[in-house]
Amino acid sequence: MPTDLKKYIRSIRDFPIKGIMFRDITTLLKDPIAVKETLNQLISFAKELKIDKVVGIESRGLIFGAMLANELKAGFVPVRKPGKLPAEKESQTYQLEYGLDKIEVHKDAISKGDKVLIHDDLLATGGTAEAACKLVEKLGGKVIQISFIIELAFLNGREKLRNHKVNSLITYEDEN
Amino acid sequence: MPTDLKKYIRSIRDFPIKGIMFRDITTLLKDPIAVKETLNQLISFAKELKIDKVVGIESRGLIFGAMLANELKAGFVPVRKPGKLPAEKESQTYQLEYGLDKIEVHKDAISKGDKVLIHDDLLATGGTAEAACKLVEKLGGKVIQISFIIELAFLNGREKLRNHKVNSLITYEDEN
Repeated sequence: MPTDLKKYIRSIRDFPIKGIMFRDITTLLKDPIAVKETLNQLISFAKELKIDKVVGIESRGLIFGAMLANELKAGFVPVRKPGKLPAEKESQTYQLEYGLDKIEVHKDAISKGDKVLIHDDLLATGGTAEAACKLVEKLGGKVIQISFIIELAFLNGREKLRNHKVNSLITYEDEN
Repeated sequence: MPTDLKKYIRSIRDFPIKGIMFRDITTLLKDPIAVKETLNQLISFAKELKIDKVVGIESRGLIFGAMLANELKAGFVPVRKPGKLPAEKESQTYQLEYGLDKIEVHKDAISKGDKVLIHDDLLATGGTAEAACKLVEKLGGKVIQISFIIELAFLNGREKLRNHKVNSLITYEDEN
């Protein structure tokens, strides 16, 4: 049975704003045994899928995204906030609670038919991951799996991603 | 003899502003053989040093920083832009060409006496890396090595970091 990783996560009340319980992975990251176990669990879901590219979402999704790509012998593709990527880009706007946000990817980062795994550290409402799926599909890639370290199940992000295979390692059923 | 990694770097003129030749690592990242070679070269400089923590500087420094920590069986510590880290922090302000910038690290991320490797993708003027060194030292860590993928030698960043061991894999002697 895999190690329960929840014990490595630090919960911080009222960050970044009042009423939010922030789930902090830096306490996991500083422990190399916990990192290795996290990576092994992510790999166990993905190793048979012949992934061509792992997409990691800036910023925290870059951390395990890059490690996962390396272990799967797949290319690594950063999805970044606007204005950060220097070459020709595809953009996707998505809805936040108040207002809009945008993410970008290089057009040459994904080839038509690439089997793609999208990784981020946290599944909340699913808006960013859904936008990342659209970016991959605009470039002709196939989203084979979306993987997260942590899932905030009470925000129903899986519903937004229901057309895709979603994996998470640690689930919180409520804010506490 | 190690592979010359420069062939994997894309150079983009006038990004982010006119007169700057941007060195883009995304073309390296999407090639798993190039990633593995880059990682092997970074490890070759560090494997005998018994590193306790690898510090990766947001955003691009998180990518190889995390992979390097995992390979060295060291903890991984993200250094981030202001307001991103949720727990008790140490901050360091540093000079930009015009104005000031700031980076932060969690106080509990580094223990007194930790042997620390700092990683970022690019050495330009060295201001950010110097600030990261100060953060590590404020927390009682020892900076054993600072590693970069790319060094813009004509900006003399090494001079600012002269009290530390600095490694880079790819050097540009001028803007072209």
